[in-house]
Amino acid sequence: MANLGFIGLGAMGGRIAKRLLDAGHTVTGYNRTRSKAQWLLDAGMLWGETPSAVARAADITFTMVANTTALRSVVEGPDGVLDALAAGKVFIDMSTVSPSFSRDLAAKVAEKGAHMLDVPVSGSTITVEQGNLSLMVGGDEAIFEQVKSILLDIGPRVNYVGKNGQAALMKVAINLSLPVQFLAFSEGLLLAEKSGIPRETAYKVWMDSAVVPPAIRYRGPFVLKKPDEPLFDVNMMQKDLLLALEIGREVDVPLPTVAVANEFLTAARAMGLAKEDFAVLFDVLARMSGISNE
Amino acid sequence: MANLGFIGLGAMGGRIAKRLLDAGHTVTGYNRTRSKAQWLLDAGMLWGETPSAVARAADITFTMVANTTALRSVVEGPDGVLDALAAGKVFIDMSTVSPSFSRDLAAKVAEKGAHMLDVPVSGSTITVEQGNLSLMVGGDEAIFEQVKSILLDIGPRVNYVGKNGQAALMKVAINLSLPVQFLAFSEGLLLAEKSGIPRETAYKVWMDSAVVPPAIRYRGPFVLKKPDEPLFDVNMMQKDLLLALEIGREVDVPLPTVAVANEFLTAARAMGLAKEDFAVLFDVLARMSGISNE
Amino acid sequence: MANLGFIGLGAMGGRIAKRLLDAGHTVTGYNRTRSKAQWLLDAGMLWGETPSAVARAADITFTMVANTTALRSVVEGPDGVLDALAAGKVFIDMSTVSPSFSRDLAAKVAEKGAHMLDVPVSGSTITVEQGNLSLMVGGDEAIFEQVKSILLDIGPRVNYVGKNGQAALMKVAINLSLPVQFLAFSEGLLLAEKSGIPRETAYKVWMDSAVVPPAIRYRGPFVLKKPDEPLFDVNMMQKDLLLALEIGREVDVPLPTVAVANEFLTAARAMGLAKEDFAVLFDVLARMSGISNE
Amino acid sequence: MANLGFIGLGAMGGRIAKRLLDAGHTVTGYNRTRSKAQWLLDAGMLWGETPSAVARAADITFTMVANTTALRSVVEGPDGVLDALAAGKVFIDMSTVSPSFSRDLAAKVAEKGAHMLDVPVSGSTITVEQGNLSLMVGGDEAIFEQVKSILLDIGPRVNYVGKNGQAALMKVAINLSLPVQFLAFSEGLLLAEKSGIPRETAYKVWMDSAVVPPAIRYRGPFVLKKPDEPLFDVNMMQKDLLLALEIGREVDVPLPTVAVANEFLTAARAMGLAKEDFAVLFDVLARMSGISNE
Repeated sequence: MANLGFIGLGAMGGRIAKRLLDAGHTVTGYNRTRSKAQWLLDAGMLWGETPSAVARAADITFTMVANTTALRSVVEGPDGVLDALAAGKVFIDMSTVSPSFSRDLAAKVAEKGAHMLDVPVSGSTITVEQGNLSLMVGGDEAIFEQVKSILLDIGPRVNYVGKNGQAALMKVAINLSLPVQFLAFSEGLLLAEKSGIPRETAYKVWMDSAVVPPAIRYRGPFVLKKPDEPLFDVNMMQKDLLLALEIGREVDVPLPTVAVANEFLTAARAMGLAKEDFAVLFDVLARMSGISNE
Repeated sequence: MANLGFIGLGAMGGRIAKRLLDAGHTVTGYNRTRSKAQWLLDAGMLWGETPSAVARAADITFTMVANTTALRSVVEGPDGVLDALAAGKVFIDMSTVSPSFSRDLAAKVAEKGAHMLDVPVSGSTITVEQGNLSLMVGGDEAIFEQVKSILLDIGPRVNYVGKNGQAALMKVAINLSLPVQFLAFSEGLLLAEKSGIPRETAYKVWMDSAVVPPAIRYRGPFVLKKPDEPLFDVNMMQKDLLLALEIGREVDVPLPTVAVANEFLTAARAMGLAKEDFAVLFDVLARMSGISNE
Repeated sequence: MANLGFIGLGAMGGRIAKRLLDAGHTVTGYNRTRSKAQWLLDAGMLWGETPSAVARAADITFTMVANTTALRSVVEGPDGVLDALAAGKVFIDMSTVSPSFSRDLAAKVAEKGAHMLDVPVSGSTITVEQGNLSLMVGGDEAIFEQVKSILLDIGPRVNYVGKNGQAALMKVAINLSLPVQFLAFSEGLLLAEKSGIPRETAYKVWMDSAVVPPAIRYRGPFVLKKPDEPLFDVNMMQKDLLLALEIGREVDVPLPTVAVANEFLTAARAMGLAKEDFAVLFDVLARMSGISNE
Repeated sequence: MANLGFIGLGAMGGRIAKRLLDAGHTVTGYNRTRSKAQWLLDAGMLWGETPSAVARAADITFTMVANTTALRSVVEGPDGVLDALAAGKVFIDMSTVSPSFSRDLAAKVAEKGAHMLDVPVSGSTITVEQGNLSLMVGGDEAIFEQVKSILLDIGPRVNYVGKNGQAALMKVAINLSLPVQFLAFSEGLLLAEKSGIPRETAYKVWMDSAVVPPAIRYRGPFVLKKPDEPLFDVNMMQKDLLLALEIGREVDVPLPTVAVANEFLTAARAMGLAKEDFAVLFDVLARMSGISNE
C-alpha cells in the first residue's frame, strides 16, 4: 500500500480520498476548511497543516481543487506543494485547469527532480461513489505505469493520453459538449412544451430516450426544479468554454456549436444568472421563447 | 394473446415484429421485399399479400417504415391499410413522420370508426434486441391503455405523451439532439487531435467519459472507420431537422444549435456526402480544420 | 411613349408609377383601395376597374404587390392579369416573390403567347424618389431589350440577371443580408452602450462610419425611436429568409449567418414583436443583454 | 497653424499626414522605414530620427500604427513618445488598439502632465484621399475642443465619444460588422451562383443594391480577383473580433453573428489563408458549398 497525500477535500476530492483510504492506502490530507474533512479524519485520514506538509509526508501527492487560481494557491509559496517536492516524489493534479498552466507547472516540478501527472476526471460525485469515475492521464508514461494501480483504486477506466498537459486539454475537449448538449436538450423540451406537451411529460420521455448522456441525466431535473446549489455554475462552465475557444484558435479548429453555447452563457450572465447551475441555459432559451419560467 | 399485423419489416420493424412473435402473439406481416422477411416467416409469422390484407387479418396493425412518403404509400390506395380499417380496429404507426401528417392520418382513421396511435421509438436495432427500446405514445388515452401490455412486449419504457401527433412531435424534439451532440463531439475530437493527441486515443477517452449518450456510443466509431452502410444518412437526418425547424417557427421557439447543425448537414451534401451516415459531420468539420480525413 | 398598366399602387408601387407618368408614359392603374391612388389619378393616371382591365388596356403591365399570395390574387381568376394577356403583351412583376412561383407564372404567361419578366428592385421609397432605385431583370433577354428604356425611367441601374425567376432569386440573395447586417449593428451598439457610451452617441458614430449600408441608414434610427409603422416587419423579413434557407438547401449552400438571424426573428415573434419593423432585432438582443429597452 | 508630429507613415498614416501638410501645418514625421516617407519629405515634412525626437519637436503628436504591439514599440523605451511628453503636450493615437491598453497608456501620459486622446478612424485609404474619413474621439473633452479644428483638417466627421479608451472601444464595436457583412454577402453570392447566375452577374447586381456598405464596396471585387496584397488580413480581422468577444463577455453582451464569423476566420486559418485579405471568407464558404474557387 502507498503513502499518499491529498489536497482539496471538497465534494469530489473528499470522495476520491475516501476511496483511496478504503483501498488501504495511507492518506495525509489537507483542506482549506478543516471541518469539512472531519469525516475523513474519522475514517483514518492523517492531517497535514499545509499543502507543503502533506507533500513532505507523502510519496505521491494529489490535488483536486476548483480551478487554475486555486491550484496556484496550493502549489506556490512557502506553504505550497512545490516547496516540498524532491527527487522520487510524484505529484498528481486532478483539477480541471488550463492545459498551458498544467504544462508549466510540470516543468517546475521537474526542476525539483520530481514528476507530475495531470489526471483530470470525467464524472460527478455520484459517479465516484459508484466507482465509475473515468480518469485521463498526461505526463511521463513510465511514471504513469508506476502509479496506475493506485489510479485504478479511484475508478475503473484509466486512459493514458500523452505528455504533460494533454490530459488537461482532453478534459476541456470533453467538457465543451456539456452546455451544447444541454442547449439542444432545452430546444427539444421547449419545442414540445410550446406544442402543448406538458414540460414534465416531455422531460420524462426525453430521459427515457437514447440521446441522454449521463451528464444530462443528473442535471436534467433542474429544468423542473432548480437545485439548492449549482453543481457547476455558469461562470465555471464559461471558463471551460473559453479555454476550448482559445485552444481552438491556437490549433485552428472551428468550434461552431461551442461558439453558440458560449454566447448563451453570456446571455445567462447578462440576465443575472451567473451563479446558477449552467442548466439555466434552459431558462435563457425559455425567455427567448416568450416563457418567463418563474 | 393478440392478433397483430406488422407492415415494414426492415432493420427496426423486423426486430420489433420478432419480439411480438416471441411474446406469443399472432403476427401477420408484410414487407415490400418479401425475401427480407423470410427469417420471420421461418419463426412463425404469417404473410399478408398487401398492407390492406394485413390490416384485414389483424385486430391491431403496426407500421414501421422509412418516412412520411413511405407511410403514405402503405396506408393509401386500394391496397392500403386505410381501406381495411373498420370499427374496433387499432392502427399503430411507429415510423418517424411529420406530426401534421400523423394528425391528419389519425383523422382519416377515425372516419373509418377505427383508432390510430402514433408510437415512435427511441433507440437502435441493438436497443431493440436488448429489449431496451423506449416508446412514446400519442392518441386516445383509453386506446393506449387497451394496447399498453402489447407495447410493453416491445420495450420496457412506454410513455403516454398526449393526443394524436404529439408523440410524433416528441420524437422530432428528441432527434434534433443527435446531430448537435455529434457536432460537439467532433469539435472536441478535432481539438484534441490538432493539439497532438492521436484520434484513436481521444476517441477512447471520450467514450469513457460522462458526456456520451447511447446514440453517440454506437455512432462514434464511425469517426475511426466509416460504416459499410449508414445507420441514418445525412438526408434523413436533415429531414428531421427541417421538421424541427418548421415546428420551431410555428410555435415560436428559437433553435440555435439545431440551426447551426442544419447548415453543416447542408455542407455535407455540398461535399457529396448526402448518402453517408450523418457521422460525416466529423469529416465536414475536419475539412474546415484543414484535415482531409481521406 | 408607351402604353403601360400598373397594378399595386402602395408606397413603392405608387411612387414607381409616378415616375413612369412623369416620364411621359400613359399609365392605367389599379389598386385594391382606390382612394390611395387618388394622387396618381390627379397626376393624370387612368383607372382600370380590375387587374384584367388594366392588362387589357396596356401593352406592358407592371405588378408591385406585397408577396406571393398578393400576386396570386391579382393574376389569377376572371379579373386577373393572366386572363387579359395575349400575344405581344409584356407582363413585368416587380414584387419580391418566391423564385419558383415566378418561374411557374412565367410559363403560364408564355402559354398565352405573352412574355413575363421578373424585375424586383433594391431600395426604399426614398430611393425611388431620389431616382436611385436598382432593378434586376429575369426572363427573355430580347424582351428585356425592348422594355429597357422604360425600366431606366424608373431607376438608373438595370441589370439583366438571367432566365425567368433568376431575378426573383437574386433579390432573395440580396435581402438575406438585411437582418444579418442589422444584428451585427445591434451587437456593436449594445457593446458600446454596456461599456458606458450613450446609445445616441454610439449610434451617431456608427452612422458616420464606413460600415453603414443604405438599408441600415434609414432603418438605424429605429433603435432610438420606433417608427409609427414598420417599413418591413418581422414576419415579412422572416418569409424572405425562409426562401433563402429553402433555396440554400436545394442548391447546397450553407447559410450560417442567415440561419442565426432567422432564429432571432423567431425569438422576436415569441416576444410578441412579429408586427414590428425587423429593426426590433435590436430589442431582442437588448433583452438577451439584460436591457429591457422599454 | 499648429506644430505637429506624426509617427507611422504607412498607407493610412502617410495619407493623413499629407492632409495635415496640405492644410498648412508644420509636420515632423517618423517611420520605421524612412524611404516610404520620402514623398512626404518632398512635400515639406520634417524628419525626426526617433519617435521621442518627433514628440519633443511637436506640440501635438499623432501615432497611426498597425496594432497594440506596434504602438507599444513606439511609445515605450528611451526612444519612445512617452519619454518626450511633458505638460502642455497632446498625444493623439489613431491606431486600432485594445481599449484597455489605450486607457492604460492615457494614464501614463497623464503622469507626464500631458494629455492623450484615442482617435481611431473609419474608412480606407481611398476615403482619406476623398476627404471623407470619419474620426471618433476618446479622452478629456476640453482637450478635444482644443484640437478639434486640426482633426477636421483630416476628415469632415469628428465625433466625441467619451473618456479615454471609449473611442478605441467604439472602433472595435464598428469593425465587428465587417466580417459578418462579408459573410452574408458571400452567402448571397454563392446562393445565386449555385442557382445558375454567373458570379460576375450576381456580384454586379449586388453592388448596385441597397445593402452594400462602403467597406464591402471596395472589398467586394476580391471575390472575383484576389488583391495583390491584403487590405486587412484574416489574422488582423480576427484580432479585432477577439477584442469584441472579450469585451462582450466583460460587459455581458452576447454577440451571436460575431461568434459565427470568428469561427469562419479560424477555418480560413486552418485552410492556410491567414495572410489573405479577410475577403477569403468567401472562399471558405465556397469550399463548404463544394466549390473549390481555385
